[in-house]
Amino acid sequence: MDLASFVTSLLTSFVIFVVLVLVFTWLSRRPGNAPVYYPSLLLRGLDPWEGRRRGTRSPVGWIRQALSASETDVVATGGVDAAVYLIFLSSVLSILVFSGIVLLPVLLPVAGTDNALERAAGLQNGKTRQNFTELERLALGNVQAGSLRLWAFLLSVYWVSFVTYFVLWKSYKHVSNLRAAARSTSDVKPEEFAVLVRDVPVPPPDQTIKDSVDSYFRALHPDTFYRSMVATDHTKADKIYQEIEGHKQKIARAEVVYAESKTSSKPEGTKPTHRIGFLGLIGKKVDTIEYCNDKIKELVPKLEAEQKITLCEKQQRAAIVFFNRRSAAASASQTLHAQMYDRWTVMQAPEPREIVWSNLSKKIYERQIRQVVVYTIVFLTVVFYMVPITAISALTTLEKLREKLPFLKVVVDQKEIKTVLQAYLPQLALIVFLALLPSLLMFLSKLEGIPSQSHTVRAAAGKYFYFVVFNVFLGVTIGSTLFSALTTIINNPPGIIKMLANSLPGSATFFLTFVALKFFVGYGLELSRLVPLIIFHLKRKYLCKTEDDVKAAWAPGDLGYNTRVPNDMLIVTIVLCYSVIAPLIIPFGVAYFSLGWLIAKNQVLRVYVPSYESNGRMWPHMHTRIIAALLIYQTTMVGVILLKKFYYSPVLVPLLPMSFIFAAICHMRFYPAFAKTPLEVVAQHDLKETPNMDAMYTAYIPACLKPEKLEDVDIFEDAQSHTTSRATPI
Amino acid sequence: MDLASFVTSLLTSFVIFVVLVLVFTWLSRRPGNAPVYYPSLLLRGLDPWEGRRRGTRSPVGWIRQALSASETDVVATGGVDAAVYLIFLSSVLSILVFSGIVLLPVLLPVAGTDNALERAAGLQNGKTRQNFTELERLALGNVQAGSLRLWAFLLSVYWVSFVTYFVLWKSYKHVSNLRAAARSTSDVKPEEFAVLVRDVPVPPPDQTIKDSVDSYFRALHPDTFYRSMVATDHTKADKIYQEIEGHKQKIARAEVVYAESKTSSKPEGTKPTHRIGFLGLIGKKVDTIEYCNDKIKELVPKLEAEQKITLCEKQQRAAIVFFNRRSAAASASQTLHAQMYDRWTVMQAPEPREIVWSNLSKKIYERQIRQVVVYTIVFLTVVFYMVPITAISALTTLEKLREKLPFLKVVVDQKEIKTVLQAYLPQLALIVFLALLPSLLMFLSKLEGIPSQSHTVRAAAGKYFYFVVFNVFLGVTIGSTLFSALTTIINNPPGIIKMLANSLPGSATFFLTFVALKFFVGYGLELSRLVPLIIFHLKRKYLCKTEDDVKAAWAPGDLGYNTRVPNDMLIVTIVLCYSVIAPLIIPFGVAYFSLGWLIAKNQVLRVYVPSYESNGRMWPHMHTRIIAALLIYQTTMVGVILLKKFYYSPVLVPLLPMSFIFAAICHMRFYPAFAKTPLEVVAQHDLKETPNMDAMYTAYIPACLKPEKLEDVDIFEDAQSHTTSRATPI
Repeated sequence: MDLASFVTSLLTSFVIFVVLVLVFTWLSRRPGNAPVYYPSLLLRGLDPWEGRRRGTRSPVGWIRQALSASETDVVATGGVDAAVYLIFLSSVLSILVFSGIVLLPVLLPVAGTDNALERAAGLQNGKTRQNFTELERLALGNVQAGSLRLWAFLLSVYWVSFVTYFVLWKSYKHVSNLRAAARSTSDVKPEEFAVLVRDVPVPPPDQTIKDSVDSYFRALHPDTFYRSMVATDHTKADKIYQEIEGHKQKIARAEVVYAESKTSSKPEGTKPTHRIGFLGLIGKKVDTIEYCNDKIKELVPKLEAEQKITLCEKQQRAAIVFFNRRSAAASASQTLHAQMYDRWTVMQAPEPREIVWSNLSKKIYERQIRQVVVYTIVFLTVVFYMVPITAISALTTLEKLREKLPFLKVVVDQKEIKTVLQAYLPQLALIVFLALLPSLLMFLSKLEGIPSQSHTVRAAAGKYFYFVVFNVFLGVTIGSTLFSALTTIINNPPGIIKMLANSLPGSATFFLTFVALKFFVGYGLELSRLVPLIIFHLKRKYLCKTEDDVKAAWAPGDLGYNTRVPNDMLIVTIVLCYSVIAPLIIPFGVAYFSLGWLIAKNQVLRVYVPSYESNGRMWPHMHTRIIAALLIYQTTMVGVILLKKFYYSPVLVPLLPMSFIFAAICHMRFYPAFAKTPLEVVAQHDLKETPNMDAMYTAYIPACLKPEKLEDVDIFEDAQSHTTSRATPI
Repeated sequence: MDLASFVTSLLTSFVIFVVLVLVFTWLSRRPGNAPVYYPSLLLRGLDPWEGRRRGTRSPVGWIRQALSASETDVVATGGVDAAVYLIFLSSVLSILVFSGIVLLPVLLPVAGTDNALERAAGLQNGKTRQNFTELERLALGNVQAGSLRLWAFLLSVYWVSFVTYFVLWKSYKHVSNLRAAARSTSDVKPEEFAVLVRDVPVPPPDQTIKDSVDSYFRALHPDTFYRSMVATDHTKADKIYQEIEGHKQKIARAEVVYAESKTSSKPEGTKPTHRIGFLGLIGKKVDTIEYCNDKIKELVPKLEAEQKITLCEKQQRAAIVFFNRRSAAASASQTLHAQMYDRWTVMQAPEPREIVWSNLSKKIYERQIRQVVVYTIVFLTVVFYMVPITAISALTTLEKLREKLPFLKVVVDQKEIKTVLQAYLPQLALIVFLALLPSLLMFLSKLEGIPSQSHTVRAAAGKYFYFVVFNVFLGVTIGSTLFSALTTIINNPPGIIKMLANSLPGSATFFLTFVALKFFVGYGLELSRLVPLIIFHLKRKYLCKTEDDVKAAWAPGDLGYNTRVPNDMLIVTIVLCYSVIAPLIIPFGVAYFSLGWLIAKNQVLRVYVPSYESNGRMWPHMHTRIIAALLIYQTTMVGVILLKKFYYSPVLVPLLPMSFIFAAICHMRFYPAFAKTPLEVVAQHDLKETPNMDAMYTAYIPACLKPEKLEDVDIFEDAQSHTTSRATPI
């Protein structure tokens, strides 16, 4: 890629970004778009324009607001998870800023004043002296082999590493305190009083599973056991429930339509009708309101019968056990209960809204096998996807494309089109391609048998990280030699370092463009929310009848960490790995993470609504992966500098054990409080209050099994129990 | 080594064994030797000859008694640890017996009827057809390369592996139940109510450590916290205490001497005197009884003062916290207390008698660093000791020895001496050599900062296992090529398999002799207890004055797992690895483990007294190492059979992942109950009884700090506390 297409690429990206920001500034001021740009504010009952009326009507008001919002505001709006995501972005930003402060003023002159490229070009053929760009001149490639200037590059790797350790240590501590603070508030959260029990053994024939869970936990926790809820297979009940809800919705819509028809020409109105056949297209025409009411009347007793059967006979071998104190639940979730570990395994209960009921009953061995199978599939996917990526890499040069597809000649030969295509084609192909994967990975992670949504998201993010690092980073870098690289890895593991070191410098410009495209276009789209805006307006115009429908149309969803985090991670890996090879990438990285932080903060404050709260459980995941990126960086740098015939390169080797030790110390010191609940965090409020235990129990009842009135919790519990009255009154 | 010296070796070993057994039979019947042969019985107040008087006076009576004793008897006498050691021996025995039943009748004829050795010899030179022994003829070496007979050897590896899996699974389950049973008895053991707390943070200046421990645990466990005991640096108090005890002992002895002198010639007796200078050789002569009484009078107030200072001012940042219920202590020991893991780390308290006070106060990071340092030293030791072992291997043939040390010619050239030396020299050198190591390893393991004696023993046993496997097994096998082997490992890890496969068959005879020597001579000495017998009689004659002195002279000690287990493990590794290469080793292995089991059972029932009880905590350690031996075996067999140009050899490769999966499943299912205390095991007796908590507290008070009367527990506790009266009365 020459300098012209690089600049074109940057400029077009920038223009798109500016246009999108302008679009956002214009659109977000129109009251009709408020549900798209301020859904979070609306849901919390706030007026989105309140701030603006007080004089902040400037187009950059959102920036000022985002900057001035404190972490407490973020936690209050988006929860600890969102705050932790922002800390992740700002940590990476700090790493890059601190690195850049030293690396840019030192390395750019050191590289720029050398002339390895000129000499190499001069040696090959005298005339093509302009074969290299300014970009290449300011990179490691321009330093002559064996030159003492390489010490500057070598020490820079140390600087970047120490900056990373320092920032990560600070951030881990900060996040740990944030998590502790969030968990030691006096708010009563049902999951703090509950424990998830799996692998319940088969009860004796005269007992239900509920009875055996009750007697087991009452015996082991006589003072603190409150009651238990056995997981049930409620798919059938849920189906009937959904049917009833569907009919209720139809009635609501039909009533709105009926009322509207009344106010117009005919005062008696037209009763809405629909056909009962396939998709409402064929079959008998019926009065919607009457028909649905009949259906509901018919279904309600069916649901009640099914509820009874579900509660009593469809019990699964898993349960949620409630304790009357936080510390009791925290202790119980960390204590080994059974002598054989394949029975009565306990863990912290997930939040009610993020629980994955269908996974609760999976047995311990089944979970292990599923995990192995899923990881095999992921491994195959990672390797299999290499094929198309390799193809894209091979087609990177338009010349090759034209040769292979001659009918494109007409288009490609036009100069402007050619420049744009050359700048974007490979990157666009890559980005589109990556959009297909996350759903598959979420699906696979769910198959593993993980009982909570947040853990599933983490598992999917982990898989996606493998994918992007292997395929995008390694794939593009090593390019068409990928399969020979695989062979190398198998035969001679250290060989891959040499191979990477050989290929890395060549892809620097590609990744510069990639990062720029990602943040200009990606963040532009994110901020302007064009897609949700269009969908919302279309839906409101043609589909929504009731208020509930409209609300559903603008429901903002959450941040989608499962793709967001690994994509950021990819940028972390790229920027770290090129930070010394081509220091010019650092400003791009800084731009990516500062813009990302700003826009994410805006979106957290105004748009997204968290669908669950894991209290920053994502942080150790991010931390480990930043260190993994650092390790890839350190390893490749040993090879890159060695290839420059600089034999002090092994001076870098101590960095690798250093990173491992750093990771181990962080893991030892901070991780336990993320995996388990520390007693000192939860025990503070335990004796001061008597929480409403019934409410907590009710929070876990699935919608389709909920008794009509909340006083019926006892009835619900008795339905699960074989003995109709409980053994001991509590 | 030729057949003659092999048979000589076997025969002499056997003769020594028979002589030792006869010596045992004769000596153990003499009542004066009872404290040597029946100390365990005497300590439990039983009459060693009771059984014999009832008609079992036969010389093999001990065998009958050992065979008839049930596991319950063993647990009652030697504790669960001894029972688990016997299970380990019998498990290995079962593995070998089951393997032998199939391997011996199948492999011996298959190998014996082939003629690879004859052909190879014939090819080299026609006359030396007797260059190989019957032993070699009955081994894998006699099967021709590429022959289909190798299928039998290949399938035998599968058989041995499956037998091992089966037996180990059964044994793990059995041990787990044994452990659970031992822990769910209603006996009140102090360690079940206690938790060891380390890494206590520095308290605020107005609090002692005791106060901060108390307030922290009272806040987190308001209902179940009983009291706490802070670890102190009591080395100085202990020194004074030991001095007082020494004087008391001297007085007791002097009184016996004085009384004896009275009964003889002079009725007024001679008062015993001694010199107070260096070793009692120089200085003023004093009346022992008076002098010592004066000293004691002088020291007692000093001790009391030192006790007070120790309790209050020498508190260490570690404590033992007592709970008033077993289940509370079990939960607390498994629950994360602090948000940062480097503060308030908790674990199960060790038994009072096995606690290592000096290690309690070591901080978490210090422990990590110590561990790394110790393992580095151990690694260097393992590698450094290879040098002498290699030298021994090189000198194995007497011819070489004679060449190098010509003055030995006179001795060596005599035929009988030559044969005996040839048979024993290398093995003896090895055995003597191995005797030096265990104390060093125990010392190193203690340096790691492990808080309990039993864990130290396990850590030392683990190190010793590395040592014997690397040095004895690999060292002897690969012999002088050891250093080239190290280079191979570093450059090309799979190369070591080929190297082992090449060298293994050659050392078969050496190891046959080694195993035989170990069990004939080793077990003969063990059973006859000649060394303790001689020491006891010498001591009783010349040193012992009082009853206590005599008791101390025959104190039997415990089984010494730290050397016993790794030595047995070495035999397991050797026998497994040669089971298919030279199946004749199996009967030797069977003899080793059956004799070992019999003699160990006898010694457990009559001799050794356990010095602590870890409830079979050693089992997972043994289990893992048996699987490690199996993995070494499987890996080498792939190489050995491949070297025979048998290209179905990779059929064995699936065994390796199979072993790993087996190990993982066992670890997952059984291990947690060994590392932690399952609630269901301890909760059974909790509510039925009200244990004497003061007695438990007292059990942990070190001897030198013990208050005179037991009612003074409160005084002891108050001495540690800053506030003289406790905050809340319990």
